Amino acid sequence: MEIAILGGTGPQGSGLALRLAKAGKNVIIGSRSAERAADIARKLEADHRGLTGKIFGEDNISAVKRAHEFVFLAVPFSGHAATLTEISPYIGDKCLIDLVVPLAQGNPRQMDMPPEGSATEQALAILGPDATVVGALHNVSATVLADLDHGINCDILVCGNKLAESKKVCELIREFGTEAYYCGPAENARCIESLTSILIRLNISKAVPFSHAGIRISHREKHGD
Amino acid sequence: MEIAILGGTGPQGSGLALRLAKAGKNVIIGSRSAERAADIARKLEADHRGLTGKIFGEDNISAVKRAHEFVFLAVPFSGHAATLTEISPYIGDKCLIDLVVPLAQGNPRQMDMPPEGSATEQALAILGPDATVVGALHNVSATVLADLDHGINCDILVCGNKLAESKKVCELIREFGTEAYYCGPAENARCIESLTSILIRLNISKAVPFSHAGIRISHREKHGD
Repeated sequence: MEIAILGGTGPQGSGLALRLAKAGKNVIIGSRSAERAADIARKLEADHRGLTGKIFGEDNISAVKRAHEFVFLAVPFSGHAATLTEISPYIGDKCLIDLVVPLAQGNPRQMDMPPEGSATEQALAILGPDATVVGALHNVSATVLADLDHGINCDILVCGNKLAESKKVCELIREFGTEAYYCGPAENARCIESLTSILIRLNISKAVPFSHAGIRISHREKHGD
Repeated sequence: MEIAILGGTGPQGSGLALRLAKAGKNVIIGSRSAERAADIARKLEADHRGLTGKIFGEDNISAVKRAHEFVFLAVPFSGHAATLTEISPYIGDKCLIDLVVPLAQGNPRQMDMPPEGSATEQALAILGPDATVVGALHNVSATVLADLDHGINCDILVCGNKLAESKKVCELIREFGTEAYYCGPAENARCIESLTSILIRLNISKAVPFSHAGIRISHREKHGD
């Protein structure tokens, strides 16, 4: 089983490639340049021990074609719509997992949402209402993803209009050793994507004594009731 | 120092009154009916030991007038705009802390946001741009608030356009023994309020083995770097 990551040469895509390869999945990094993708793939494999899956590099369209079931999208928001338009003829019924967060240019503490409401909803608008689009992994920093010596310090909120496919994505993410929750339809990406700018605000704030903030779902201990 | 809670006869307002009184604050529960408010205030005091603050009951306008600095708003969203319009001439420079979440009628797993974007932004629109409006405590269940034998199981996300006043609200909430974070301007209430419907979805879901879900800000342990 091969999994594609479009924008896999960027920090978040590369971190995700490492997590997937550590979990035994074969990964195809997609990029506008197949050569650059292959270079990064070789470097990721050379720099990290204990990867039980392989990492390959391809241009984006070839990566989509090779993907068995899952295509992650981890490009900057500025390339979101163009990449989706490019791969649209080739995605078929494969599951697009959108990590993209429309942060405001120059101020990542603010959002600059597209007219569709969120990146995930924009992906649905471009790929069409029958496409399988799942939003996930918006709130994990690239640094946390790439640091294979430590676990992922947050839960993953997953949304999408197709329940069964969204739950499959939750199962895949749980292989990273963290919890994933199905959080409702694609529209809820407005909230989940926006959390990222709030977490970045906390990371930047001098009043908050930590970084790499994330979200965990807490719950009430049962008190014998 | 007396603190008002409009809608203080409802479950969330009553739970909040208990937390404040436990923290030694004198509370004025506001309601459309002063008699009902006084009844509930007496009942809350009679049913709970260890409250070091007092609980009074008044009609909403009298509660606002008596409040020293803080006026919490915990009415159902259906009464949000009307209550704000009613108290608008009396709020002055007191700090309105808006707990209201515009859940969809009949389906609390969805939001039905007002045209302003969120309840907190609607409050700003009604009270005027110079008003002090802070959004907070959207994600805590009434049950958790009212159970004084146990701590609050989540962090509190606070937003507002006025930084200093928002931080005062964070300090007040920390007196409940939980962490509060300033999360940016009033616009971020769109995200923070929406989290409530996601948490309700998790609570309802048969796939999730817990209830009273909340949010905690996780962060990365420092690994010697």
